[in-house]
Amino acid sequence: MKSTVNFRRLHLKGDQTMTQAQEARLAMRQGTWTGPTVHQVKGYVQANLVMLPRSDAYEFLVYCQRNAKACPVIEVTDPGDPEPRISAPGADLRTDLPRYAIYKSGTKEGEVRDILKLWTQDSVAFLLGSSLSFDDALARAGVEAGDTVWALNTEIPTVPAGKFHGNLVVTMRLMSHEQVIPATQVSTRYIFTHGSPIHVGNPEVIGADLERPIYGPPLPAIPEGKTAVFWACGVTPQQAAIVSKQELMITHAPGHGFVTDLRSDSFCIP
Amino acid sequence: MKSTVNFRRLHLKGDQTMTQAQEARLAMRQGTWTGPTVHQVKGYVQANLVMLPRSDAYEFLVYCQRNAKACPVIEVTDPGDPEPRISAPGADLRTDLPRYAIYKSGTKEGEVRDILKLWTQDSVAFLLGSSLSFDDALARAGVEAGDTVWALNTEIPTVPAGKFHGNLVVTMRLMSHEQVIPATQVSTRYIFTHGSPIHVGNPEVIGADLERPIYGPPLPAIPEGKTAVFWACGVTPQQAAIVSKQELMITHAPGHGFVTDLRSDSFCIP
Repeated sequence: MKSTVNFRRLHLKGDQTMTQAQEARLAMRQGTWTGPTVHQVKGYVQANLVMLPRSDAYEFLVYCQRNAKACPVIEVTDPGDPEPRISAPGADLRTDLPRYAIYKSGTKEGEVRDILKLWTQDSVAFLLGSSLSFDDALARAGVEAGDTVWALNTEIPTVPAGKFHGNLVVTMRLMSHEQVIPATQVSTRYIFTHGSPIHVGNPEVIGADLERPIYGPPLPAIPEGKTAVFWACGVTPQQAAIVSKQELMITHAPGHGFVTDLRSDSFCIP
Repeated sequence: MKSTVNFRRLHLKGDQTMTQAQEARLAMRQGTWTGPTVHQVKGYVQANLVMLPRSDAYEFLVYCQRNAKACPVIEVTDPGDPEPRISAPGADLRTDLPRYAIYKSGTKEGEVRDILKLWTQDSVAFLLGSSLSFDDALARAGVEAGDTVWALNTEIPTVPAGKFHGNLVVTMRLMSHEQVIPATQVSTRYIFTHGSPIHVGNPEVIGADLERPIYGPPLPAIPEGKTAVFWACGVTPQQAAIVSKQELMITHAPGHGFVTDLRSDSFCIP
């Protein structure tokens, strides 16, 4: 199964070399990169993927607008066009992610490595900013959040739009209490990739489900000496797909984001 | 012609008094306020209005996403619901603006004071952040931009989405050259109401049409000692309606914005 997208922009001239983002996407397309993108391809904006039939696209876009902290829209492709022409020209959203999740009638059917057979002329792709984009900036500011980023369900309801509803999904990072304020300050700048945290401290306040993480290892309790910091997460639509019994939604697999050409440190506020 | 919207949230309890925003909207609803909102109701976020049939709403929302600097979406109402439940509960978008502009088949048909007869169960309203929201913040920072805010056509193309295309409309404010940097710094914080300027200096660089302003008096040239500063403007969709020959678009009349309950100084970045 070969991609049919126009490769022209990946065909480099003369002594041009591929960027790290292009290399990563090519490896994903070729199937040599199938693992997570957490802490990978530093400096590039990563995006959550949502693909829907055109008939569901409007209500979903309104859902994103009403829940912009969880679903900051970076790009919407034209129906049938799998190329994100603004954020990653030359890329093919059907092949250039390491792993996809398929939701049918509200049930996760499984994960696959490409979606060439599922994409139609009626498909619309949404790229939503991912907090994986600012992990590098947190590290540069001295925030030691470790290697693990969790994605967790919460009990915070999102604002419904048409059929789409459900609870907020968050990412959680653990750090020392001194690092909470710099982490808040730094992430606030990355407003297009979730921005500031939505909660610091007790997971129970937001009903964060540590026992059954969507991504990351189960965690019975927050380790001694660590503070949990929570950001709105672009996996939220996957939860909406389940609760709303959405007929078909294709997404990235949690932790396996799309690497855009956008640079994290320019795709933010001053 | 009376509004049929539920007034419950405007019915205040006990000794509650109306906010300035509620007072302004009531005066507009009652027809005693028919003039501009420029430099009025300071401290509240003002919004540009676009109303479309549901069938055009998706392409327009994608147009806003692709041109977010000009069209930052504050709220999208459900089809048939004229109440902006998030940004101004109790308000009625059919009556609570001082003046509306009607575009039919790409031609501006005129301006009216309410749109009760044009609103249907199929109508969707979009509120887009207006730069009128930060004029007060500019003044507080010592930027003396005078009483006049111009809205001008430019030669900068927007990114098309479906049928919607056209050139960017900008607002222009005149100030001393020392005030350009503080004006840039201050407005950058108001990212949901256009944020930073798109150009400073020579109007010809962006093809700003000073001779035929959309709003404000004609100006043959920038006055001696003044620097022109340009922000993306939420009147841009009105230009798209003309160029795209949109069958029906109802908007605010330029300079006559919708006053929300949102406070400018909390609806911004730190």
